[in-house]
Amino acid sequence: MSALFAMPLRVYYEDTDAAGVVYYANYLKFMERARTEWLRMLGFEQDELSRHDGVVFAVRSANAEFVKPARFNDLLQATVAVHRRGRASLTFTQEVQRAGEVLCRAEIRIACIETKDFTPCPIPGRILARVEEWTQA
Amino acid sequence: MSALFAMPLRVYYEDTDAAGVVYYANYLKFMERARTEWLRMLGFEQDELSRHDGVVFAVRSANAEFVKPARFNDLLQATVAVHRRGRASLTFTQEVQRAGEVLCRAEIRIACIETKDFTPCPIPGRILARVEEWTQA
Amino acid sequence: MSALFAMPLRVYYEDTDAAGVVYYANYLKFMERARTEWLRMLGFEQDELSRHDGVVFAVRSANAEFVKPARFNDLLQATVAVHRRGRASLTFTQEVQRAGEVLCRAEIRIACIETKDFTPCPIPGRILARVEEWTQA
Amino acid sequence: MSALFAMPLRVYYEDTDAAGVVYYANYLKFMERARTEWLRMLGFEQDELSRHDGVVFAVRSANAEFVKPARFNDLLQATVAVHRRGRASLTFTQEVQRAGEVLCRAEIRIACIETKDFTPCPIPGRILARVEEWTQA
Repeated sequence: MSALFAMPLRVYYEDTDAAGVVYYANYLKFMERARTEWLRMLGFEQDELSRHDGVVFAVRSANAEFVKPARFNDLLQATVAVHRRGRASLTFTQEVQRAGEVLCRAEIRIACIETKDFTPCPIPGRILARVEEWTQA
Repeated sequence: MSALFAMPLRVYYEDTDAAGVVYYANYLKFMERARTEWLRMLGFEQDELSRHDGVVFAVRSANAEFVKPARFNDLLQATVAVHRRGRASLTFTQEVQRAGEVLCRAEIRIACIETKDFTPCPIPGRILARVEEWTQA
Repeated sequence: MSALFAMPLRVYYEDTDAAGVVYYANYLKFMERARTEWLRMLGFEQDELSRHDGVVFAVRSANAEFVKPARFNDLLQATVAVHRRGRASLTFTQEVQRAGEVLCRAEIRIACIETKDFTPCPIPGRILARVEEWTQA
Repeated sequence: MSALFAMPLRVYYEDTDAAGVVYYANYLKFMERARTEWLRMLGFEQDELSRHDGVVFAVRSANAEFVKPARFNDLLQATVAVHRRGRASLTFTQEVQRAGEVLCRAEIRIACIETKDFTPCPIPGRILARVEEWTQA
């Protein structure tokens, strides 16, 4: 069982579409915001990782199920749990919830790549160590 | 073997992110544009479907693989093939390509729902008939 | 002199473009988020205004100056001050700042319109009263 | 009188919001697409300008008036006319129209800046020459 990180977020007009609900691709934006805040909570700023380590995370796959629609002005939670840790990639299970109800769930795999040429590379050791520590907390 | 529909699209600044490539969620926007143009090519306008038939299509699941990055100013093609036809849902295999090279591929399932309360409903018969006709062409 | 409302916001990948900075149209998203949170702080939820009063706010004009670029991962503040109060419209001066430095400033005019046909209408009296109260606080 | 460039564009779900119309910031996306296609029509690709000349165009100001709403599935035209030519900046008047009716009009000023440090610089001479030639055609 992984630890669980959750961040609140609000649905603004920009997130919705003419069907009156959150546009499907925007759930992936919400999930990326949550992964960014999760990394920050672990102590890592992605702009510094890019500058000092020369690495960036790229999404390799996203398998998402859209269960119920979120609406304008809803207060949501985006969650992050680590599903698998590899040397060069991490797989997350993430959800967007409203009052505990799952609206969207996804499995997202990100890979560590070199900023200069986008080739895969190992995740910096101090990040993997912190992720392992958090996952098992 | 399904027939294949393809639409060209250009990568503008709005589609890219600070990593210099197309932001991952935006491939799903490209794919929705292609599904919309495919439906139009079959003779169906979604605003009329909503007004006259009281139905709209909602994405139920999206399984996407991000193979290679698209960049600012790239000229891409977004493709649509029908993978499975159900009474109330359609499953597509879609790709975003650059000069024949696959950058992103996805399996997208959409369901027909009633505009008034978002409950699932059968796809209008004249649409299913046209889809079947096109798929087997 | 108007009172000043400010909300913090973070720059995520979705907000940036291939030039490495926040895409210009996205400052208008940030400013709308701030107006929404300002209205909420005054006690008004826009989804309820739409349902119960049958009104929605529409942007009539936006005059924006882009002074300095915001970058990925920046922590920003979006501010709201009321510049002019009319019976049917409000004009705001808004800024997006980073550590007190102005990155973007804009004058935004919004009008109250009827949800059913988008015709202009007076702003509900209890909103105007609260805005006046806050502005002069 | 300036020459006029126009590009067609379609309103997709991604462009709309829960009020059923195009989200206000997205008109600025449409206008940027039109400026990009206008530059391409004049013979200039912005990715090459960035690589070979080390310059990029940044929007300095945008004064937009939102006249009537565009809706899902509308077929629009985004226009470009040159209002003022400076050594280091260009000012455009742009419109988004539907069947000849103006939905949004804006005056947009862009400046030429160096890619490496974002400092203002002169617009490359061959671009200015082509712009002058086109404007007076």
